[in-house]
Parts: sequence; structure tokens; C-alpha cells
Amino acid sequence: MSKPRDSYREDVAGRANVEDTPELLAYYDELESFDAGALWTVANKIEPWEPQSSSQPVLWRYKDLRDHVLRSVDLVTPEKAGRRVIYLNNPGRTDVAAAVGWIYAGLQVMHPGEQASAHRHSASAIRFIMEGTGAYTVVDGHKMTLGHNDFVLTPNGTWHEHAVSADGSPCIWQDGLDIPFVNAMEANFYEVHPDLTQAVAYPVDDMTKTWGNPGLTPRGGDWTKGYSPMFKYEWAPTYEALSKLAGCSDGSPFDGILMDYVNPVTNGPVMKTLGASMQMLRPGERTKAHRHTGSYLYHVAKGSGHSIINGKRFDWNEHDIFCVPSWAWHEHANASDRDDAVLFCLSDLPVMRAMGLYREQAFGENDGHQPVL
Amino acid sequence: MSKPRDSYREDVAGRANVEDTPELLAYYDELESFDAGALWTVANKIEPWEPQSSSQPVLWRYKDLRDHVLRSVDLVTPEKAGRRVIYLNNPGRTDVAAAVGWIYAGLQVMHPGEQASAHRHSASAIRFIMEGTGAYTVVDGHKMTLGHNDFVLTPNGTWHEHAVSADGSPCIWQDGLDIPFVNAMEANFYEVHPDLTQAVAYPVDDMTKTWGNPGLTPRGGDWTKGYSPMFKYEWAPTYEALSKLAGCSDGSPFDGILMDYVNPVTNGPVMKTLGASMQMLRPGERTKAHRHTGSYLYHVAKGSGHSIINGKRFDWNEHDIFCVPSWAWHEHANASDRDDAVLFCLSDLPVMRAMGLYREQAFGENDGHQPVL
Amino acid sequence: MSKPRDSYREDVAGRANVEDTPELLAYYDELESFDAGALWTVANKIEPWEPQSSSQPVLWRYKDLRDHVLRSVDLVTPEKAGRRVIYLNNPGRTDVAAAVGWIYAGLQVMHPGEQASAHRHSASAIRFIMEGTGAYTVVDGHKMTLGHNDFVLTPNGTWHEHAVSADGSPCIWQDGLDIPFVNAMEANFYEVHPDLTQAVAYPVDDMTKTWGNPGLTPRGGDWTKGYSPMFKYEWAPTYEALSKLAGCSDGSPFDGILMDYVNPVTNGPVMKTLGASMQMLRPGERTKAHRHTGSYLYHVAKGSGHSIINGKRFDWNEHDIFCVPSWAWHEHANASDRDDAVLFCLSDLPVMRAMGLYREQAFGENDGHQPVL
Amino acid sequence: MSKPRDSYREDVAGRANVEDTPELLAYYDELESFDAGALWTVANKIEPWEPQSSSQPVLWRYKDLRDHVLRSVDLVTPEKAGRRVIYLNNPGRTDVAAAVGWIYAGLQVMHPGEQASAHRHSASAIRFIMEGTGAYTVVDGHKMTLGHNDFVLTPNGTWHEHAVSADGSPCIWQDGLDIPFVNAMEANFYEVHPDLTQAVAYPVDDMTKTWGNPGLTPRGGDWTKGYSPMFKYEWAPTYEALSKLAGCSDGSPFDGILMDYVNPVTNGPVMKTLGASMQMLRPGERTKAHRHTGSYLYHVAKGSGHSIINGKRFDWNEHDIFCVPSWAWHEHANASDRDDAVLFCLSDLPVMRAMGLYREQAFGENDGHQPVL
Repeated sequence: MSKPRDSYREDVAGRANVEDTPELLAYYDELESFDAGALWTVANKIEPWEPQSSSQPVLWRYKDLRDHVLRSVDLVTPEKAGRRVIYLNNPGRTDVAAAVGWIYAGLQVMHPGEQASAHRHSASAIRFIMEGTGAYTVVDGHKMTLGHNDFVLTPNGTWHEHAVSADGSPCIWQDGLDIPFVNAMEANFYEVHPDLTQAVAYPVDDMTKTWGNPGLTPRGGDWTKGYSPMFKYEWAPTYEALSKLAGCSDGSPFDGILMDYVNPVTNGPVMKTLGASMQMLRPGERTKAHRHTGSYLYHVAKGSGHSIINGKRFDWNEHDIFCVPSWAWHEHANASDRDDAVLFCLSDLPVMRAMGLYREQAFGENDGHQPVL
Repeated sequence: MSKPRDSYREDVAGRANVEDTPELLAYYDELESFDAGALWTVANKIEPWEPQSSSQPVLWRYKDLRDHVLRSVDLVTPEKAGRRVIYLNNPGRTDVAAAVGWIYAGLQVMHPGEQASAHRHSASAIRFIMEGTGAYTVVDGHKMTLGHNDFVLTPNGTWHEHAVSADGSPCIWQDGLDIPFVNAMEANFYEVHPDLTQAVAYPVDDMTKTWGNPGLTPRGGDWTKGYSPMFKYEWAPTYEALSKLAGCSDGSPFDGILMDYVNPVTNGPVMKTLGASMQMLRPGERTKAHRHTGSYLYHVAKGSGHSIINGKRFDWNEHDIFCVPSWAWHEHANASDRDDAVLFCLSDLPVMRAMGLYREQAFGENDGHQPVL
Repeated sequence: MSKPRDSYREDVAGRANVEDTPELLAYYDELESFDAGALWTVANKIEPWEPQSSSQPVLWRYKDLRDHVLRSVDLVTPEKAGRRVIYLNNPGRTDVAAAVGWIYAGLQVMHPGEQASAHRHSASAIRFIMEGTGAYTVVDGHKMTLGHNDFVLTPNGTWHEHAVSADGSPCIWQDGLDIPFVNAMEANFYEVHPDLTQAVAYPVDDMTKTWGNPGLTPRGGDWTKGYSPMFKYEWAPTYEALSKLAGCSDGSPFDGILMDYVNPVTNGPVMKTLGASMQMLRPGERTKAHRHTGSYLYHVAKGSGHSIINGKRFDWNEHDIFCVPSWAWHEHANASDRDDAVLFCLSDLPVMRAMGLYREQAFGENDGHQPVL
Repeated sequence: MSKPRDSYREDVAGRANVEDTPELLAYYDELESFDAGALWTVANKIEPWEPQSSSQPVLWRYKDLRDHVLRSVDLVTPEKAGRRVIYLNNPGRTDVAAAVGWIYAGLQVMHPGEQASAHRHSASAIRFIMEGTGAYTVVDGHKMTLGHNDFVLTPNGTWHEHAVSADGSPCIWQDGLDIPFVNAMEANFYEVHPDLTQAVAYPVDDMTKTWGNPGLTPRGGDWTKGYSPMFKYEWAPTYEALSKLAGCSDGSPFDGILMDYVNPVTNGPVMKTLGASMQMLRPGERTKAHRHTGSYLYHVAKGSGHSIINGKRFDWNEHDIFCVPSWAWHEHANASDRDDAVLFCLSDLPVMRAMGLYREQAFGENDGHQPVL
């Protein structure tokens, strides 16, 4: 007895609309025995009219997660756990352990004097510092000291390790990786550093000092790797840049004052598979709704407000994290009339653009605002 | 009663190795209620030591499938089916209807005088002509006449339709698309042409005549789209190119004489998400084994021989199709000492390269040849 | 007694208009003693309203020069002369030995069995074969056999030598180089090969066989040098390309069917400092006048006709050479109603484009045709 | 009676070495009547063994020129002079009014409330502020306020005007242009703005605020013009960048700590034809000698010291200007053991690199130091 195959029929010219018959079902069974199938049984399923994301809009409140993150210190040792991280598990993406789409994210905690073992992998990572002092990261021998809201890269294939210096305080940061994507592409490799740690081979923070100068590049500094040589992007100049741009630009109706973190050598994304941006919602600002392809994970760097995602309202405060799945309508509002709010965003926008898959649409009705469900 | 979470433990420094305890299991349950999880319960799973493809090596014999393909003409009308296509369904990828990895492929049949309705989608497609005369494709108003082993593009976002002229014969060709990839990226859009057909707006075969000239480009011919303007690549000059290269190059120990189809404006891949190549195995040639990331679908354009994939031998003849999953060892052998064999290959190599995920390894033992299981 | 300095005055707002006075003349003399001057004495001269080329339009008739070229064989030995070349000496550019602008050109003759000594220089060269059989060129170990209207490159910094095989006939070709430009940039280096000749290290014509295939590139064939790897461009496929394009394009009102020779790796010019193109004037075709920046040296590859340059008519036949200086009006006409005419053109267009200095203007009056003086 | 033609003979294999004879002289005269010549009479001249610059090393002392610059205010009106500029006239380049090679430079003075008329030209310009307050430049509607050692661009084809605000003080700055180069390329166009002035259309200093942020770019800020959108580069962040780089780099043995001003969108030169850099000589630093192709005009931004150019010593102080011609040996020394010295440099390095003509050589003897003549 064959299973039915006509569940995706559509009565539209140019779409498949074939009813199961005993003869066809027998034919389908035969095809299956040759590892084949009839396209019209699945065509409408695999060629949707528009994207339907399997991810759900989710808000993770820092006040909900912070205690659990801290508790992990008591529950597991770094030696046993590798890293003490609570990861964000989108209900629609639990099969690949993603926060949204193909992006992994987690909150990691580390105590003064602790150090994760050095390793490398094909996945690319970022780290966004939430609290504590003394955190640092070493990438291919370059040591970066890290403070509040600093953003650091550990690109594809680089040896890296995270630590907190002995004179620091307990640190929490957000990790973000393209692990689900690299796994989906069946291209992930993992190596533990033979010494479990690596030597610091350059002056501290040399990559940011060398490459992070506006309009100036070191003579002879050829850099052709597929990621930014400016491994660390600090919060203070980032906030200053947003403020300067706000002073001379109207910004975007959908995003306020939005800047992309870039590889200074290419002005392109910081890594090939992951992009990052920071955006300022000016006091009282409420943006209009739009949607675009790609998966987006927001982290509230400063202030409070709310976002409406596919008609549902999510209120957020500092260090909350929320996601906007592909092709979901979204708009943001700053809760304050006096202070700005700033959102950090990690995304796969570089993949969408490089693959020619980026598309964007404004919400046309109701003066650009979604009805809230 | 909580489900166990410690199934991925590894007793290796730097890897997660945490045993379930009642306290931890309660903690995990609590995390789940916040759409979160403990990384160490899944870390070893999502960070594998090397890629494990979910696709299986498969050979589809043309002699097995041809009758079934032809039979579809009697079983369904083009109006009902949209297109009469038997798709290749890799046993490891039936969830996404892929032949290998994220690549869809099918065999399509069309009778003289038939024409598929015009449509467009975010997925990119290629078509490789297997038999019959009079086939043609129209892409954004450019009509391409198609013969045996010709290769034609219908890129992302272009209006396109396939047909066989009334004075032709029944035609069969292979379709290849990135539908599974574009779906996975949640970026697929589909549109039926409002007129169900499009007008031919240019001289027949103009794109190949304009862009397919070695070392010459039309003055003023600016082309900045993300795909090749040379929509059709004919078999005769392709085979001639391989023959010329064979006369002045030793070729690759792993691939014989291998050339990539390229966008003549960039010398890069024909489309951003799909690459295609043609390779000649010289009389008597037997290549050495290697493996690389990416998913590869071979189509035997000429000759016969066999390939060994992950230790299993697959014998092939003209128009057979077989796949090499990511990171699978593979080597090829021409069965003839007098004639060359030629393999067409469709792959996601452009994605792997653009994302910095391409990696390659030679099989070091046994003079480069796998033991056959 | 000071010399007058007010000869460039213009009575136009924003232009310099300062009359000499004794006080000013004394001031100017003083400035001169410090290697300085007053800008307003030269401003109008060095900032002209539009380019005034120092080159003159010239036509060099092959029937005038051919005998002189052949006579050089009797007059000087290759050992004494280095190469037996009659160079084209534009009356406005005799100071730099240029045919037009910064482009050198000459007609070279060589007898069977002769071979020029191998050398290299920072200047880039091309060679366009006019008559004879057996000519060949060796570039960095790659030997190219050359026939009528073939076009070969000897790029900046490559070891090269020209020769005619012992079984050939006396050969004449046009040389074209950027010597005047490279000298003007004070960047010319010259070296004689230590052995005066170089070994042929590759299969004959391998570069054209490897790189001259439409829409196909050798896998792994990374080429990053600043010039085309396709050292030879043959006449037959070039003429075929023009014919194909003529069949599917209206061409340009100013240039008929015009194709640029390109580096197949970049689709850009064959070398950084010199560009080359081939254009077909269809039977009866008469183009409209336009002008553009850059210096252009035409060589009649096929047919006969005339060009009108800055209002003066120049009638040309096969292998005649003529120049169009920068910003000179020009239009072309094919003399035949039955046969096409084909013009090869060597230019510094790549320099003009790379430096952002290319500009173009159509002749607006008289239906686009210049009055002939 | 013919003039002699054998003055460039060299007795070296592969070089021309033909003695005049009556027969040859008659032949040469005949060739001349056809606008042609015999290559061997000029070959050795036009193919030199290495570059011989026609420019001389020159130092222009600010204390020599400053009074003359200021005096121009009394001698000519802005209306009559267009701009009151004293230009640097290299003794070897007076024919093209260049300071070195193809680079023009001058010192301009402007009094408070004055404003030059707006114009545009194909030449590209920079301006480096030496003294005074209130200077500003408007480029295509963008107003830049300018202070000491600030560097501003007025690229090819942009409307621009310079002025000093009414509440400022007399200002002096250095102009630098590629006028001689653009004239040599016969591509210079000049236009006076129809209104003689242009409206300020954007917030003051918006281009530097928008584009001058390290590692951050405005979303949607597509900039594809051939020059930097960051029209102004301020001294303070430039000096800070040099100091930071000095803290984490050994610098170059030839140049100390050297950074190039770049277009932030490309990391390439600020304009296609002119490059600029700033270099720090650390306290007590004395560099080694090297030479390279290209023409270089130095401006002492800070400190004092000396340079040895082709064996001749030039002592310099703040705001002195000196040139290094193509392929001239040069080395620099800071006079102070306590303070750093900083040199601004304007050059045609982008042209040399884009044309594949850059070459460089270290001085191998005497521990890298030239004997001083």
C-alpha cells in the first residue's frame, strides 16, 4: 500500500496539480527503488512562493538567563565542559542548535584566572562583551584586551582562546558562530591546539592599533586573508561613530543610524560568513517596518525599547537578545525620549549578499507600521 | 523524568565530557524552558572533527531511468505536472529532495511542440542536453537553441522557459538547481510569468555569439550581473578546448584535464551558487584519490569507466549520473585505452570558495589509490 | 632686463589676467632665484579649457614605407642595428620618437633564419604580423608561431625575442610599444639576456591553447600578473568573432562592430598600459564623428576606405597605418559596398580609463559628419 | 648636408651601434620625408638602462618663500590673479611647471573673507594647511573646515573652491596637483562654475564624519567614484595613528613609521593619480637609503632633520618642502633625540603601481648609507 503523494497540489497555472491514481502511485514506488521521484509530487513544496522561515521570533531576557549562566560555574568545571556556555535554542531550530537560521549563539562565563583551551575550527566566531573586567582573547598570537560592548573576531581557521586575567572580575559575553551553517555545508573541521594554549607573539592589541585608523593604512601592510585584520572593534569609537553619523545623516526609516562593522582592507564584512552591525535609535525614534532575507540576531548594547516582529511585540532592555528570522516583518522603537538606544546585530547578511539572495521589502500599509496581534 | 543529555561525551582534552547528574538534568530542563541549553551537552556533536556528509554516494544509470522518464509523458500532462521531471533523490537527503548535498537534479522530457510555462525564482538552474533535437531555452528574452551535451544557464531571477520546436524530436535533458540551498537559506521566491510565455527579444543565440569569443569582448559591453552573460556553452568548442589543453598540459593527477565553465567577464563561476566543469580522462587514464569539501554531481558526457567513492566502485556509461558527497575520497578511471572519457560536473564549489570553506586532501597511501571494499 | 611674463592672459572671470609691471617683473625674477614662480603667469597655459594634442593626424602608407623597410636589410646588420626597424615619427612628437601621443610604433623586417637577441624592459610591446611566413616570438620561454594579422604580446618585464624560422620567408610586422610613456614616467629599465637567447620551455603556442577558450578556464590556473596570459591572438578567430557579433548587434554609430582584445582572466585590457581592439566596418558603412581622450594608432587589417580626422580626409588601404590624436574628431568609412573593412587599433585607452581621464563627445552637427577642410 | 645621427652608439651586444655613412645619412633623410626614422639611430636613447630623471632634488625653505607668498597679497588682486599662488618650479621641469616629475605644487595665501571662484578640472588636487585659521574648502557642495596640517582633496571633476571665513586669519597652504601629468596625457578640461560659487548642500564636514570611522561603514553607503569620499583627513587622528603604529611596529628601515592616506572604501590611494602619506621619524631615527620609481614631494609637517638625496644633504625644518625624483637614492634623519619628526609626502605612486611600473632597490653598501658628496 503506497503512501499518498499529492499533498502539495495547487490549482494555479504553472504549478503542479496531479492527483494520486493507483497507476501513478505504483509508478512513484518504482521510481523510489531507483533513488528517484516525480518532481510534480514535491515541486510546489520545494519551490515556495516566498520564504517561510523555520525559525521563530524569540526574545531572550538577560535577567532570565544571567543567573543560570553564573550557576554553570558551580555545576561544571572548565576541564569537563570545555567552555561554560548557555546556548540560545530557537524552538524551530533545535535540530541544529541555532539561535536563528544558521547562526549559533551562547552566553559564556569565565572567572578571573581561567582560560579556555586553544583550538581552531572552520566555523567563524565573534564575541561581544557584556560584563566584567580582564577578559581577553588571543587569535593567532595576537592578544586583545576586552571591555564592555567590545566586539572581537575569531575567524575561520585561526587558533584562538578566551581567558580572564587573574586580576579581573567574572566576565560574561555573548558568543556568536556560524557553526550550523558550516555544518550544513558539511565543511567543519576542528582541532585542539597541541599545547592547549598559544604564546602571545605580538604587542597587545596590535591589530586594532595597526588597522583601526580612519583613512590611514600601514605602508606595505598587505592583507589578503578572507577576514578583517582588525580583530577587535571597541565600543567607545563605535559609539562615537554612530553619534557623528547621526549628526550629519537622516539615517534609514527602517533602521535609524546603522553602520556595518567592516574589514578595513575591503570595506566588506568582517568575515565571509558572518556580518555585524551597530545601530542607534535616536531618542523617541520609532522605525517603519520592512523585511529582508537573512537571519538576524540582535543584542541590546544600550538603552531599552521594543521591536515588533511579524506582528508580535517584544520589549527589550540592555543585554537582552532577540532574533528576526528571514523575511519576517520587523520595526524597532526606542522607549526613551531622552537617551538613545543602541542595537548590536549579528547576521548572515554577507552570505545572502555574496550568493545573490538578498531581497528587501518595505511594509506598505498603515504608514509603515504592522498591526500588533 | 528528564531525557539523558550526555550522549556526545569525548574523553579528550578540550572536548566536552560531562556526565548527567540529577542536578544537571534539572538544570537542563530549566534552561529548556527559556529556549536555551547547555553547550557542553551538544558541543562535540556540533563541532565534529571533520565533515560527515549526510549524502550517500549514488550512481543513477541512464538505462534504468530513461524508460521511466519517457513514461511520464503518458502519465501526466504538462499542464497538470508543470514539468515532467524525474528527480534524483539521494537516500540521505530525501528531506530536501537533493541529489547530493544542497543540489537538486532531475531528468526532464519534452515532446516536439511542447513548451513549459515561463517562470522565475531565486534558485539558479542549469540544463544539460542528453538526447533529441529542437530543444531550446528562452532566458530574459534571449533564445538559445540546444544540442547534445550543450549546457545552458537560467540564473537566479531570470524569466525562463524550456521548449522543443515542432520540427524536433523528443528531448531529454538533465536539470540542475540549487533549490535545496536557497530553501535552506530561506530565500526562495517563485513567480509565474503573467503571460505564461515570454517574447524572444534578441537574435537567436546572441549571448553566446557576443560573449563566447576567446580573448575578445564587445566594446561597451558592461555586464555587472552576478552570473555569466554567456547563457549557452556548446559541446563542440568545449570538447575542442579540452583537447587543446590535453595537448599542452599534464593535467591534474586527481582529475585529468579539467576546465571550469566560467563567466567570461570575471573568469569566475557561471553563477554565484552553482559551478560547472568538464573534465577529460585520457585513454587509459586512472586518477589518484583525493577528497575535498563541497557536493559534486557528475554526468558522463562521453565514454565509459568507473569511479571509486569512499572505497566503493561505481561503473558508469554515457549519460549515467553519480555523486561525490563532501569530503568523500574519490578517483576516476577511463575504461578505454583508445577513447577519452569526458565528465560534466555540477557542484556548489563556488559557495565553498566564496565562504572560505574549501579544503582538499590527497589520499596518501597505496600510491594514491583507495582499497576497494 | 626681465623677460615678459603676461603672455597667457585671459579676460574671463576666474582666469588669470595680470599685466606685467616693473614691480611684478622684479618680483618674478626674485621668485626664480628660489626655484619658484607666480602661478598667475602660467595658470591659463597649464589649465587649458580642453586638451590640445601636440600630435598631428598622420597617415603612413605601406606602399611608401615597404621598400625602405626592406632596404634596411641591405644597409645594416642585425648585430649592429639590434633590430632593423623603421619607426613612425609624428611631426609633433619627434622629441620622444612617438607615432602618436606616448605610443611608439615601427615596422620591423627579418629574414629567414634571423633572430633578434633576447632582452627585457619595463616598456610593454605588441607585434602585429603584416607579411611573410615563419615568424615566431618567444616570451618567457613560451614560443608563439605567427601568421598574417596575428597579434602577440611581449609584456612589461618579460624576456622576449623575435625570429623567423629558416624555412620561412622575409617577414614584416608592426611593433607597438609604450616606450615614450614609460620614459616620461621615468621608469624604464633595460636588460640584455645573459645568453642573448632563451630556451623554449613549454609546448608551442601553449598559452593560447590554455587560455584562449571561450567560457572555459583551466582549473587551478591562477594567473595574477598584470597582463594577459594569452600571449597570442590569432586573426582567424578574431575575424570570426567580429562576424558573429555583426550578426547579432547593431554596433556603434561611431565605430561599427568593435571588440577589445582582453586578458581572459580579467576581461580587462591585455596589458596595463596598452590596449588593442579590432573593428569591422560593414560593407558600405560610414560612421559618425566623435572624439575622446587618449592616443590611437590604427592599422588597416583588411579592406580600404577613409577616415576624416579633425576635418582632414585620409584614404587608406591594407596595412596602412594612421593615428588619431587625443580629443581629435574622427569618423571612418568603408570604401566597398561588398566587402567589410577591418581596423586594428593600438591605444593608451587602458591608461586613460585607469586614471579616470577618459572622456568622449559626439559631433552634434551636420548629422554627425565633419565638414571636410 | 645631413645632420649626424650616430650619437647614441653603444658597443654592447644587443644594443645599436651603427656608424653614419653617406649612404645611411641619405637614407635617413628620405625616411624623414615620410615622417619616419631608423630605430637604431635612437634605440639606445629611448631604451635607457635605467631611469634618468629630468627633475633635480630641490629643497624649498619656508623661511625663503613665506614673505614672497605674503607679498603677493599686495601685488595682485584675487580677481586678476585667480588665485595668489607661488608655485615650485623644478629647474629640470620648468617646461611643464612641475615641482618634481609630473607633480605641480604651490603655496597659496588667502585673507579672511576672501574666496576663490569655483571651478572644476580633470586635474586632481590636494591642499595641506600650513598656517592660519578659518580656511575651508567646498567640494561638490560639501564644506570642510581646515586646520593646521589638515589634508583635503579636490578630486578630478569636482566643483571646488577655497576660502577663509571672515573671522579667520591669513591662511597659507600648499596646493598639490597632477596638472603636468593630465596635460601630458592630453586630457585636461577646465570649467569655471557658472555662478562663480556653489551652495553648501550638506552638513559641515559630513564626509569625514560619515566615512572616517575605523572599521565602520554606513549601511547603504555605496561609493563607487574613483576617489575617496573622505575628503578631509585631519592632523590629530593622523598623528595619533602614527603614534599607535609606532607602539606596535618596528616600521621600515627606509621610512620609519609610514602610513598611506587611503580611500576607506578601497583601502587604495585617495585619488587615482595622486597618493599621499605621512611618516614619522622617531627620536634619533636615521633611515637607510633606497630608491624607487615615481616622483615624491615631501612637506615637513613637524620637527626638523635632514635628507640625503643622490649623495647631497638637505637640512629641513617645519613646512619646508623638498623633492625626491624618480630612482634617486634617499635617506632621512631626525635631528632630535627627544621629539619625533613627521613628513607629509605627495606622490604619483598610485600611477606607478597601477601601470606596473613601480620598482624599488635598497642601497647595498656602507651599511645602507650614501656617501655624502
